Amino acid sequence: MKRLFDIDPWKIKTNVLDKEEKRLQESLTSIGNGYMGMRGNFEEGYSGDTHEGTYLAGVWYPDKTRVGWWKNGYPEYFGKVINAMNFIAVGILVDGEPLDLAKQPVADFHMELDMRRGVLNRSFIWKSESDAAEIKFTFERFVSISQKELCLVRVTAEVLKGSADLEFHPRLDGNVTNEDANYEEMFWEEAGRTLDAPVSLSAKTIPNPFGIEQFTITAAMSNRVSGLGQTGSNESGLLVEETFSGIVTAGEKIVLDKYVAIITSRDILDAEQAFIAKKMASEAAGAGYDPLLAAHERAWEARWTKADVKIMGDDEAQQGIRFNLFQLFSTYYGEDERLNIGPKGFTGEKYGGATYWDTEAYMVPMYLSVADPKVTRQLLRYRHQQLPGAYHNARQQGLKGALYPMVTFTGIECHNEWEITFEEIHRNGAIAHAIYNYTNYTGDESYLVETGIDVLIGISRFWADRVHFSKRNQKYMIHGVTGPNEYENNINNNYHTNNMATWTLQYTLDALKKVSPEKWAEHSLTETETGHWEDIIARMYYPYDEELGVFVQHDTFLDKDLRPADSLDPSERPLNQHWSWDKILRSPFIKQADVLQSIYFLNDRYSMDEKRRNFDFYEPMTVHESSLSPSVHAVLAAELGKEEKAVELYARTARLDLDNYNNDTDDGLHITSMSGAWLAIVQGFSGMRVKEGVLHFKPFVPKNWQGYDFKINFRGSLLDVKVIEGEVTLTVEEGPELAVYLYDELVQVKGAVAVKP
Amino acid sequence: MKRLFDIDPWKIKTNVLDKEEKRLQESLTSIGNGYMGMRGNFEEGYSGDTHEGTYLAGVWYPDKTRVGWWKNGYPEYFGKVINAMNFIAVGILVDGEPLDLAKQPVADFHMELDMRRGVLNRSFIWKSESDAAEIKFTFERFVSISQKELCLVRVTAEVLKGSADLEFHPRLDGNVTNEDANYEEMFWEEAGRTLDAPVSLSAKTIPNPFGIEQFTITAAMSNRVSGLGQTGSNESGLLVEETFSGIVTAGEKIVLDKYVAIITSRDILDAEQAFIAKKMASEAAGAGYDPLLAAHERAWEARWTKADVKIMGDDEAQQGIRFNLFQLFSTYYGEDERLNIGPKGFTGEKYGGATYWDTEAYMVPMYLSVADPKVTRQLLRYRHQQLPGAYHNARQQGLKGALYPMVTFTGIECHNEWEITFEEIHRNGAIAHAIYNYTNYTGDESYLVETGIDVLIGISRFWADRVHFSKRNQKYMIHGVTGPNEYENNINNNYHTNNMATWTLQYTLDALKKVSPEKWAEHSLTETETGHWEDIIARMYYPYDEELGVFVQHDTFLDKDLRPADSLDPSERPLNQHWSWDKILRSPFIKQADVLQSIYFLNDRYSMDEKRRNFDFYEPMTVHESSLSPSVHAVLAAELGKEEKAVELYARTARLDLDNYNNDTDDGLHITSMSGAWLAIVQGFSGMRVKEGVLHFKPFVPKNWQGYDFKINFRGSLLDVKVIEGEVTLTVEEGPELAVYLYDELVQVKGAVAVKP
Repeated sequence: MKRLFDIDPWKIKTNVLDKEEKRLQESLTSIGNGYMGMRGNFEEGYSGDTHEGTYLAGVWYPDKTRVGWWKNGYPEYFGKVINAMNFIAVGILVDGEPLDLAKQPVADFHMELDMRRGVLNRSFIWKSESDAAEIKFTFERFVSISQKELCLVRVTAEVLKGSADLEFHPRLDGNVTNEDANYEEMFWEEAGRTLDAPVSLSAKTIPNPFGIEQFTITAAMSNRVSGLGQTGSNESGLLVEETFSGIVTAGEKIVLDKYVAIITSRDILDAEQAFIAKKMASEAAGAGYDPLLAAHERAWEARWTKADVKIMGDDEAQQGIRFNLFQLFSTYYGEDERLNIGPKGFTGEKYGGATYWDTEAYMVPMYLSVADPKVTRQLLRYRHQQLPGAYHNARQQGLKGALYPMVTFTGIECHNEWEITFEEIHRNGAIAHAIYNYTNYTGDESYLVETGIDVLIGISRFWADRVHFSKRNQKYMIHGVTGPNEYENNINNNYHTNNMATWTLQYTLDALKKVSPEKWAEHSLTETETGHWEDIIARMYYPYDEELGVFVQHDTFLDKDLRPADSLDPSERPLNQHWSWDKILRSPFIKQADVLQSIYFLNDRYSMDEKRRNFDFYEPMTVHESSLSPSVHAVLAAELGKEEKAVELYARTARLDLDNYNNDTDDGLHITSMSGAWLAIVQGFSGMRVKEGVLHFKPFVPKNWQGYDFKINFRGSLLDVKVIEGEVTLTVEEGPELAVYLYDELVQVKGAVAVKP
Repeated sequence: MKRLFDIDPWKIKTNVLDKEEKRLQESLTSIGNGYMGMRGNFEEGYSGDTHEGTYLAGVWYPDKTRVGWWKNGYPEYFGKVINAMNFIAVGILVDGEPLDLAKQPVADFHMELDMRRGVLNRSFIWKSESDAAEIKFTFERFVSISQKELCLVRVTAEVLKGSADLEFHPRLDGNVTNEDANYEEMFWEEAGRTLDAPVSLSAKTIPNPFGIEQFTITAAMSNRVSGLGQTGSNESGLLVEETFSGIVTAGEKIVLDKYVAIITSRDILDAEQAFIAKKMASEAAGAGYDPLLAAHERAWEARWTKADVKIMGDDEAQQGIRFNLFQLFSTYYGEDERLNIGPKGFTGEKYGGATYWDTEAYMVPMYLSVADPKVTRQLLRYRHQQLPGAYHNARQQGLKGALYPMVTFTGIECHNEWEITFEEIHRNGAIAHAIYNYTNYTGDESYLVETGIDVLIGISRFWADRVHFSKRNQKYMIHGVTGPNEYENNINNNYHTNNMATWTLQYTLDALKKVSPEKWAEHSLTETETGHWEDIIARMYYPYDEELGVFVQHDTFLDKDLRPADSLDPSERPLNQHWSWDKILRSPFIKQADVLQSIYFLNDRYSMDEKRRNFDFYEPMTVHESSLSPSVHAVLAAELGKEEKAVELYARTARLDLDNYNNDTDDGLHITSMSGAWLAIVQGFSGMRVKEGVLHFKPFVPKNWQGYDFKINFRGSLLDVKVIEGEVTLTVEEGPELAVYLYDELVQVKGAVAVKP
């Protein structure tokens, strides 16, 4: 655990420049607007250890991967989010020396990410060697959520003492590389620049042999400087910059406003990009910094109004949950159905790929509550428009139907470890289940019957072809899978996978009763086929141990050398940083919920006794080394009345990055596990469920909190749920009244209703 | 199946230049001398599709490999045999045009590899466009087995008609690349050249980040030309060449003899290489082409005397077995204990790595019989000197003892698919078993007790740490392995692996009774430790099915959708070229002997009934898609009296490459499966076994053969075994008389003994 920033309910702030942990500091001060974003890199550059990263949603490169011998069906590349043009750069020279915090000591350093407003701020005082001159530099930047193509940077130099020769070099710099390029290739080549103001720079991803489109991006910048005149400009390959310079003296305040517009070939044809970007940058400069900032802040305010969670009596927890919501909304707010929620968002490059099953399993349940239904529907549509890719993936494996990819940008699998791509097929169940979740939560069946059904049929066909019938057992089985517990591979009859397969088949059969005959025809669906699905449901094999009364993770799990995780030497943890892969695979230790993932997904199918027996058997062997693990366990622990366990697991998920629990946040934030704290509070502590269209709550307050207060959006109403020790207050703040079950009692909520349990 | 060359008992020859199958033709006309070798590339170059390949034993490069996410214990590179300097090159210009068979039609093309003499020959007639001039070109080359550093090339131009301007450009050309470099890197950089005759060129492998040594190689060439004078020389990066030119007219015969000496930093310090190589090339030129060729031919004669196999009545089979023996001896004849038998020998690059378990499982049993015991002992010593690497590999996995690598140059694992490197640990058993084989065959226990025991202790310690005790079953188990059937991965309790583990432990315990107390002390071995080994032997779990009466390949094999290979659509085979990897893994189809590998290795442990039941159960599901598969099955089929099956499988192994059965010989020959035909004849058709120091035979003659005749070297005697329908003749050709069991009857063989069974 490593905590760099101060505790504050709304801010990520510090007065310390930690050069040893610069990368971690950068990760934690990332900002984004769903369209672009960047790590907390310094505008003026930094010559010490740093991880520069600017990312544009949907812009990627297929990085060739090679391993041993290729086998049929292996994807040939690993699709990677790529570090794009550095457009925040403003080189600064004072008395001819580059300003560089890696080398120069400065005073009064302060850095602050204001999550309420979505603005990153930094300031320090530079002193000349003789102490004769002092300048206070302030940097402020934001990526606008009211106009996605805009990034604004304001640099202020306030001369406190003496005088100095000051130069500003705002620039667009495409000479950037990826930290995780397999072969240290540069992924960009120049595609043009214009030098008439506002200057622009275009860059294109290098060609690839895989038939993946090359992306072109163009940034234009308009710089408005008060107190200094433009004295030059400069250009070279993949670089354009302007120079503003002059002698500044005590009392002067120089302000540089850099207006950058960035567009990509995802939206605008290459040939039109420079014209449009330049126009946008000019218009932004015309509108002015303060009005644009104000519009951005208003848009953040509106998001918080729908989604804020307050925690009374625990500022650490408060900061954690807001940080998670802030970073999630910075990554995704549903504007573009071609986009999804990448595992690192705009904060790093690791894991490649834009989209994992994390979205359906961990994001959808939260977005349903904290934003308009259309935000979640965009996530579902994303999968629907990628259905052809999913059919392609199944065909690559010689199978029918649709297999959604483990990692993707386009619907086509772009990761290439077979134990993941071929085997971790439970993801298909999660993607089907998200349709259920959306329909159940919103009550809107139109998506299901008109659109989602295509996805369900594709997935069901995959399951029906992927099972085999074991004559010896007279049962259907699924061999050769990896469950959610990625610390085992190529196992047979993973309970969760078998379970999600038949669940999907049944849900599809149920849905088919509601769809038009045209849908049946469109998919050439026959009752012979659905009859086969029914047979699979009836004769599926589920490993179960009578003696223990638990579902068995997979066929031979119980033959392992079973022992609890607390028997491990702490120096061996996390296992994935200390043990060889083969030792991990043979061990009984579980990375994240597996049988318990089923119990979380299909919660109302299990009795409390079943839940308790399985939780008590599996959780002690679980090492929670996936960032996705603690939240599911926290929710189940809360349901089982294991308050202490629930709180322990909440803490692990809420401040995972802020406290660098897994010692890997320097690579970027764990975006797709950031719903974990919200799920732990809302589904865990408050016990929220939606059953037959009605909300249920059974709240409790963790011991060291005074209370909590969250809002959910439910069927047109904005409901505030405030839980203080001894009292639960439900308030409909907007929209129609709601009937809610509170501790199994039906309550009609219109305005505020306070209940003492 | 594709047959390019004519049937001939001693030759690989054709009158057809098959441009479509140039690569295949090149593979099949490869030559080597254990130190170096090359594909059947054309001296004058070829601008069409070709796979240039010249290889120097033990000279390799660690090629960086990347896949998805790295895990602890993954080797970081894939060690690769690399294409080295082209030193056979002799560029030819006629009337100013490069001679290039890809572009120019020629007459009377002939190509011939004489296996008896180890010489490759090629000739054709060039005609000028007007037909006014005709020149017959002949190329002859050999890599000397009497002086390993020498390669000689003779080019003859016989002017049949008219006149022409002829230029020879013999050269050393280091501008070569690998076909299978992961990132198209060039692996060589120049390390110097000298231009005083004989000219030389040195090249060095590029640096690598893995701490693997860089290799330097130097070739020097001395060219003696009759009929043309030297008219120039030329040099550039990684290239030196000399020019001989002039006008030639009808009746003239120009002969270029190119003497090349090649040395490497494996033997000679970089600084001394040029001097020594030049001296060797000069001396060779001084000795002359014909005497050097004669010495080379005598050495091949001596090899054939010890090892030839004659097949009467089937020239296809005859050519097949000789081709196999020729290529094996070209790859390895035991001169250097730092070398081993690479899967492609000197005929290609695929598979990387120098050494696989193939050596112990398939090569040792044959080399024991066809060459002096010291040849095999070198193979054992190779593993002994790599024991530190094997300890390293085990440590990488957090395990005790020694794990021999799946693929290696140095003893350290250099392949990086975890399902191979981590899991396919049965190889450790094969390496132990080779020590048994050597000891049992030769009767020489000195290697076992002085040297082999170190290897056995290391391997036993690995097994003892790799098992786990399953409390539920009260048995030792081995989870997470890949058996010899690589069409399954990460299986539990592979019968063969469990079996070889306890076999090794027991053989080590037996051997320990014979070693000195110093050995115990040297290895800090205690009776507590050996007691634990005994416990593992006593309580090991072996999957067995009572109903079927067979050993089960692994825990859940019988749950599969079991069906015979002949139920497959022929268009789907070979499966590895048509099915996705995951489909293969889930299928019941077996790549190569698995349970049957155990029965082959530990043959005298099983009753005929057990052998028959297991063969009848597993062989029908076996697709024999490993080149190592047919031989083991042929031996067992022969033992079980399944003559037709044995002959079918013999055919598959004997002409695997000559008839391109697996449609992949264009990449190079399957060197390490080339003992298969020999094993099928000797252990299969003749039933050779060695029990308690005595040879046993139970020969039969396959139906379409008249008979066969082979020689084996056994305990100082050279025994000829001739089997003609109705009569077996045993002859001790050299050395002391032998007592031999023929059809279970003891026969004393001194001179020739004929027996009618």
